[in-house]
Amino acid sequence: MRYCARPEKGLSYHQVNTAIEAAFREHGEGRVQMPPKVYITFPKGDFRTMPAYLPAQEIAGVKIVNVHPENREHGLPTVMAMTILIDPESGVPRAVLNATSLTDMRTGAAGAVAAKYLSPDREVTVGVIGSGRQAEAQVMALADVRPISRLRIWSRDGKNAGAMASRFPDLDAGATGLEQACDADVVITTTPSRAPLVENDWIRDGTHINAIGADAPGKQELDPRILLRARVFVDDLAQAVHSGEVNVPISRGIFPPDQIAGTLGEVVTGKKRRGRPDEVTVFDSTGLAIQDLAIARLALEGAEWIDLPFP
Amino acid sequence: MRYCARPEKGLSYHQVNTAIEAAFREHGEGRVQMPPKVYITFPKGDFRTMPAYLPAQEIAGVKIVNVHPENREHGLPTVMAMTILIDPESGVPRAVLNATSLTDMRTGAAGAVAAKYLSPDREVTVGVIGSGRQAEAQVMALADVRPISRLRIWSRDGKNAGAMASRFPDLDAGATGLEQACDADVVITTTPSRAPLVENDWIRDGTHINAIGADAPGKQELDPRILLRARVFVDDLAQAVHSGEVNVPISRGIFPPDQIAGTLGEVVTGKKRRGRPDEVTVFDSTGLAIQDLAIARLALEGAEWIDLPFP
Repeated sequence: MRYCARPEKGLSYHQVNTAIEAAFREHGEGRVQMPPKVYITFPKGDFRTMPAYLPAQEIAGVKIVNVHPENREHGLPTVMAMTILIDPESGVPRAVLNATSLTDMRTGAAGAVAAKYLSPDREVTVGVIGSGRQAEAQVMALADVRPISRLRIWSRDGKNAGAMASRFPDLDAGATGLEQACDADVVITTTPSRAPLVENDWIRDGTHINAIGADAPGKQELDPRILLRARVFVDDLAQAVHSGEVNVPISRGIFPPDQIAGTLGEVVTGKKRRGRPDEVTVFDSTGLAIQDLAIARLALEGAEWIDLPFP
Repeated sequence: MRYCARPEKGLSYHQVNTAIEAAFREHGEGRVQMPPKVYITFPKGDFRTMPAYLPAQEIAGVKIVNVHPENREHGLPTVMAMTILIDPESGVPRAVLNATSLTDMRTGAAGAVAAKYLSPDREVTVGVIGSGRQAEAQVMALADVRPISRLRIWSRDGKNAGAMASRFPDLDAGATGLEQACDADVVITTTPSRAPLVENDWIRDGTHINAIGADAPGKQELDPRILLRARVFVDDLAQAVHSGEVNVPISRGIFPPDQIAGTLGEVVTGKKRRGRPDEVTVFDSTGLAIQDLAIARLALEGAEWIDLPFP
């Protein structure tokens, strides 16, 4: 059995996007096993256990990931993840991977896959709400599927937005106001907000939105009128209803769940698609275990490892 | 983060029984989080993901365990397990443990805890059905809570029963017939049988039975009339109904689930107990995630480890 402490080293978003797209394709074809995430709750956080199996790619395993919001005060990441890959043929655990950075990358890649199929197929302008690790991951993954003519970043603290912009020296990148960030072909929301930040009036026709931040009950970033106006795709129906961008509007009876247009897997397989070019599309990402297994398997191919005696 | 390849080294059943009893006590007090096991099925086997949290003991984590019956043909164990311990305070994974032997030991200890509370409180005669690793674990764990005056072992292949007996040189141990093995104060069944092996007539009044083998739908070792006649305790109600000794009789309508007397946790906490001395008692074990976490935590204290960089 192998342990990989830095499996993300050397991975390109081109590779990752390809692997994640393939995983969504399997999901869209109904060929994966992926039971709902299991939550264990602590006084100061939680951890989630995410098992899955992709038979076509012979990948099986479990991601375990915590969320402890107060960790930052003690110099620890809020979110840490570990993935265990299991050989479907024998059940032997093949590898344990530090999956904290892989989790960022696979989430970025899901946004890129959504944009590849749903955003205008040309050079795009991009607006990003939030400037954390996931904001950067989304832009890096997106840059692999679309040329980016302009990148505008809003953050509650403008300094952070400027700092993020400076990390994209090859792009026309800069900090901006919230409304201005929303004037783009692709809008990406990556905050932990529990109240809508993005107003409906700010989103012009034809925009594609990657709604990434909401991943737990009570979280939301978009004015629900955007969802009512848009064609909304989710990664997984049950997870999105429970904890995605749609969770609050659905629980309040504002957004009917049957208005969800489909899953990203159905988009990748061609079963579902954007309608008119001037339609607003939303991809509501909650994060799937199959993404974690796909990136872990990819990372394992090139990663340095420590050999662990097992069984 | 630590990796422990041989965490069972140096563990005594006295320590293990004590830790497992404490875990069942927490379960009986309703103070644990333990969602149902999650199954992923493969063409040739499956794996189960078992998360849990014992707040009183500050233990949290996940056991991952496979069952691949054809593995033996390739020189691999049928069952292999790994436990990940997570710090409830920060969510940091503290340790990954090879839990294959720990799984045997914690199952043995559950049988011992059941016998401690339900079998006659004196020197006992013991009959064991099956002679595999779990049969040995049950006897070793039991020997910590009851003096054993006689050990009789039945196995489909008598040679295996004799071989197991020879591994208990300090006991009056020997191979015997199936009916003779059932003539004991404590009867332990540890086979993968899918049809009853133990007949009702063979079990005398006052016997305590540890029914260990049945841990999946369709498995059973006891004549259902034994269950109807006995006071039946389970480790966890939902798991037992799904996959314990009672699963087949319940699914066939032979044994009503409301006839289950209670859980082992309720026995340990004194909420439930054996009735008359001449009553037959059955402990139906399916294996709980809290047992896995309790033994992992105990093992971690003394085990040799490899340091792994994380996060």
